[in-house]
Amino acid sequence: MFSIFPIKGYIDQIEGFYCDGIHAGLKVKGNNDLGFIYSDTLCEVEAVFTENRFQAAPLKHYQNYANDFKTNFVLINSKNANAMTGQRGLDDIDTIFSSLNHDLTNPIMSSTGVIGNPLPKELIIKGANSFDLSAKNGENLSTAIMTTDAYSKHCMYEVELENGETFKIGAVAKGAGMINPNLATMLCFICTDASVPKEDMQEALKGASHTTFNAISVDGDTSTNDTVLLLANQKSGSYNKEAFSEALRLVMHDMAMLMVADGEGAKKAVAFEVKNAASLEEAETAAKALSNSLLVKTALFGEDPNFGRIASTIGASRITCSEETLVIAYNDVVVFKKGEILFDEAQEAKAAQVLENDKYKITCDIGQGDASFTAYGCDLGYKYVEINADYRT
Amino acid sequence: MFSIFPIKGYIDQIEGFYCDGIHAGLKVKGNNDLGFIYSDTLCEVEAVFTENRFQAAPLKHYQNYANDFKTNFVLINSKNANAMTGQRGLDDIDTIFSSLNHDLTNPIMSSTGVIGNPLPKELIIKGANSFDLSAKNGENLSTAIMTTDAYSKHCMYEVELENGETFKIGAVAKGAGMINPNLATMLCFICTDASVPKEDMQEALKGASHTTFNAISVDGDTSTNDTVLLLANQKSGSYNKEAFSEALRLVMHDMAMLMVADGEGAKKAVAFEVKNAASLEEAETAAKALSNSLLVKTALFGEDPNFGRIASTIGASRITCSEETLVIAYNDVVVFKKGEILFDEAQEAKAAQVLENDKYKITCDIGQGDASFTAYGCDLGYKYVEINADYRT
Repeated sequence: MFSIFPIKGYIDQIEGFYCDGIHAGLKVKGNNDLGFIYSDTLCEVEAVFTENRFQAAPLKHYQNYANDFKTNFVLINSKNANAMTGQRGLDDIDTIFSSLNHDLTNPIMSSTGVIGNPLPKELIIKGANSFDLSAKNGENLSTAIMTTDAYSKHCMYEVELENGETFKIGAVAKGAGMINPNLATMLCFICTDASVPKEDMQEALKGASHTTFNAISVDGDTSTNDTVLLLANQKSGSYNKEAFSEALRLVMHDMAMLMVADGEGAKKAVAFEVKNAASLEEAETAAKALSNSLLVKTALFGEDPNFGRIASTIGASRITCSEETLVIAYNDVVVFKKGEILFDEAQEAKAAQVLENDKYKITCDIGQGDASFTAYGCDLGYKYVEINADYRT
Repeated sequence: MFSIFPIKGYIDQIEGFYCDGIHAGLKVKGNNDLGFIYSDTLCEVEAVFTENRFQAAPLKHYQNYANDFKTNFVLINSKNANAMTGQRGLDDIDTIFSSLNHDLTNPIMSSTGVIGNPLPKELIIKGANSFDLSAKNGENLSTAIMTTDAYSKHCMYEVELENGETFKIGAVAKGAGMINPNLATMLCFICTDASVPKEDMQEALKGASHTTFNAISVDGDTSTNDTVLLLANQKSGSYNKEAFSEALRLVMHDMAMLMVADGEGAKKAVAFEVKNAASLEEAETAAKALSNSLLVKTALFGEDPNFGRIASTIGASRITCSEETLVIAYNDVVVFKKGEILFDEAQEAKAAQVLENDKYKITCDIGQGDASFTAYGCDLGYKYVEINADYRT
């Protein structure tokens, strides 16, 4: 067996990893907008990218490396996504890296911000050349990658294996908004000193994505820049496949939940559990339909236990279902049970009480099989409109 | 050839059709909430219903009639959808119709409002028994069926055939909001005295739906109650298949556009034209993705020509596309052309000017084929949240 303990601090708690963030002049208000992760040895690296057909330049740049490339540097900017910028976007990344006076091997770039503007490369070059690669300022990095995030997102864990060996794993991430369908870019940088073999990394990353980032995002409806990057310097000398996969899943779940809770202007983090669906695909379809429904989201914002919108969204998702088998509950308050409306004044008051919480679960028992999936979402209020009506300008 | 002229008034302009609306006590504020359409002869009838798996009781009630049934009466209430009400919902409709002191044949019910509440059938019976079936008060009917609609929706046309014969066709409808994905119920009642044969009615209705109501709605993501009903009393003695289909399409287009313009709190009606896509399916997918994107809608609300969000949404829809062939324009202001960003200060100002209008077109030339589809949508602002956060209570 193994144990996973949360520990304080940022990814720079891991031996050999360094990071920092600065204000390079991309954002107008003096906030941090450029950061880096540096490793004093070469790292194995794996990534999961957006399925958007218009992948941004940094994603294409990464994929131009050979399959088994190693790296010691990730450069991250906010404010400009370097997306829809064609060959120029790729050339800009090459120009930036060839202009840096650090000793870099296969450097990776990652960007988030407005789509369709050329990268301000002079500002980025000047800023990156001022980096101290021996810095350990995780907090600065975490704020440098933020866009509409209300707060920075990070976590750290130490894993203790049965034989007493330990390794560390942690992440820094950005992403806010309903994630989907609103296309807020999600970036997540995971560092570890586990001696994970290269061949295990992609499998672990894909596996963990399914119940974490993919549970807060409808497949395929993603930003041009979404990226999850896993860097392994293998310095700990310790590894156990199961422990590593579980720790990675935990890290990604933490980051996903922080993104949901940071929905642009959101006050509520809601788990939408669909259970006893006819198939896993149908469970996912219905759970994600709920977490993405504008009518459901606005009802949650209004703290209104309008279970009819829940039912209607389930029906509109066209999964196998019947009024005669459907059960709907807010936490443990059942409001609709197999064709029967359980919504007298007392029951409505109880349901309304659940909706006053910051976190709660809405369960839909479809009663057609045994497949379950939980999607995570948030409410949608005035703040969301305010943020997105004037994000660019 | 034939001519189609818009004429004044409501569906009661058609000989043999009568209608009215009253306040029966379902809505609290004294507004009309119960209406009817009566025909002094039996009408041929056809309908198109929601694809939601939880069809409301009135839709099931309709479908319990024999395929070739005729009717002389439609009863419509707002405020309560009679959805998720099971057998009780069906029984309530039977109880209502068996309690009415009018001479009705195969009466049809239609409901819109909150899901998951039993119908207040005593109020409806009392109200319906007070109806004067010889009334011609189209305006009252049109307001009685409203829920979150900002204004009532209706149109009337007279069609003149080549031989000088004429028939009339018109509609009264309700529906507001982004229609999709927000599930605002859409009801549309179309009456005509054209001598359309029963066998032509379903074909014409389905054909016209494709480019009208379906263009403002993603297939399958619909309310529990969506209904388009076509009543033909055949009194005019005149008919031409092509003329009828075209007039029907015009009526449904009018109603669809009024619904888009009445998006809950919306200020802008926007046509999203996707052209030169690889297939019609892809053109539809991309056009509807644009009209449903929260990020696009909020940018339109902010009058922000953020074409990156347009591009990203096209890419996220996973249709066949490439930056090298994509062209994006606001009306005739091209901002992105085959990999090239045309967005200097002057061009941005021109694009922003387009967005100040109440109506405009956003065109995405995919450059991968020759299929086109236009979807219609609107902006999303604070008012939408306000309406939907407290709609039920």
